Amino acid sequence: MKFGILIFDGVEELDFVGPWELLKLWSSLADGPEECLIVSEQSRPVDCAKGMSVNAHVTFADCPPLNYLLIPGGMGIRKEVSNTALLNFVSCQAQNTSALLSVCTGSFVLQAAGLLTGRKATTHWGSLDRLRVFDDTEVVEERFVRDGNVWTAAGISAGMDLMLAFIADTAGDAAAGKVQAQAEYYPANATYGDFAGTDSAPGYLKDER
Amino acid sequence: MKFGILIFDGVEELDFVGPWELLKLWSSLADGPEECLIVSEQSRPVDCAKGMSVNAHVTFADCPPLNYLLIPGGMGIRKEVSNTALLNFVSCQAQNTSALLSVCTGSFVLQAAGLLTGRKATTHWGSLDRLRVFDDTEVVEERFVRDGNVWTAAGISAGMDLMLAFIADTAGDAAAGKVQAQAEYYPANATYGDFAGTDSAPGYLKDER
Repeated sequence: MKFGILIFDGVEELDFVGPWELLKLWSSLADGPEECLIVSEQSRPVDCAKGMSVNAHVTFADCPPLNYLLIPGGMGIRKEVSNTALLNFVSCQAQNTSALLSVCTGSFVLQAAGLLTGRKATTHWGSLDRLRVFDDTEVVEERFVRDGNVWTAAGISAGMDLMLAFIADTAGDAAAGKVQAQAEYYPANATYGDFAGTDSAPGYLKDER
Repeated sequence: MKFGILIFDGVEELDFVGPWELLKLWSSLADGPEECLIVSEQSRPVDCAKGMSVNAHVTFADCPPLNYLLIPGGMGIRKEVSNTALLNFVSCQAQNTSALLSVCTGSFVLQAAGLLTGRKATTHWGSLDRLRVFDDTEVVEERFVRDGNVWTAAGISAGMDLMLAFIADTAGDAAAGKVQAQAEYYPANATYGDFAGTDSAPGYLKDER
């Protein structure tokens, strides 16, 4: 099995590194995908949204057919939704994938490639209204949502919760448990400030209060 | 203010990218450190523990005096605790920093540099016993612990909880709240498998059950 994670200039760092970490733990600890690839359009270093510089493993041209493809978000998405080469890459890969996943505003690439039509999806709370503009997609305010073989997560850190749920669904509870334990992903139940009490907060956060 | 994050071959990806993301959000949204730097010994790309390739911003030789320094962990630590150049870099920077932070097995570098003497500290649950070997450090099984100006976190993802607590302590609850909201770090309360019920589980996780 081959799992690819797409990156591009302006990709949000944690959007893709959170899932990458859990993916690689799945691969090494619980018979997850043998081949895990970070993919970019060109071979030069990618400048992430917050200033980190990353070298992808393969370019679009070199990338083998993937079983799973994850698309992170970030400010770079606003440009990439009009990048024909990137949309073509996603569309062509999507014909063979068993699942497509996005984190944060990565869902806008799925939308631009026509892959959210008739589906429930989500994104970063600050971009929910921008996603609602598209009539063909039902926007939900969950931390992550699965609709068939398309999984979309809310903002930045939500990709980790999505990834664990995806592993549990694909490989079982015990596999996800091994990954969660090794990543020690048992977050503190701490909240700072009063965001959950504001109108901007996504539904899942308001419901939790 | 200048905040540096140390990387090296075999650094665990999420150990440093989790804090990096939150640090940069702090910087941009809530008057956090103006200069945020990823630092490595040499200028060549760093090969992370799980196969990601990252280009640091500065080398040891170029790095300015830092106000804060964070040391992530990963399998590479087992080599770095004997790397004189790295230990010298950390020791010299520590003379001027207001705070030192580590994630996962990064605490072993602090220990090797003599910076945990007489302090409480923690690490990844799988390495707690290895840290207990050192008589000069009191090992605790918390998700993160602060002892004076030294903050240490448990494994991999725990660096994010540490970072938010550090921001709250340094810049106040509202600043940490802005960062938490933008990163949408309100993790799902999901656990997979039965790790928390095993002897290996760290104290903070057993206590939560």
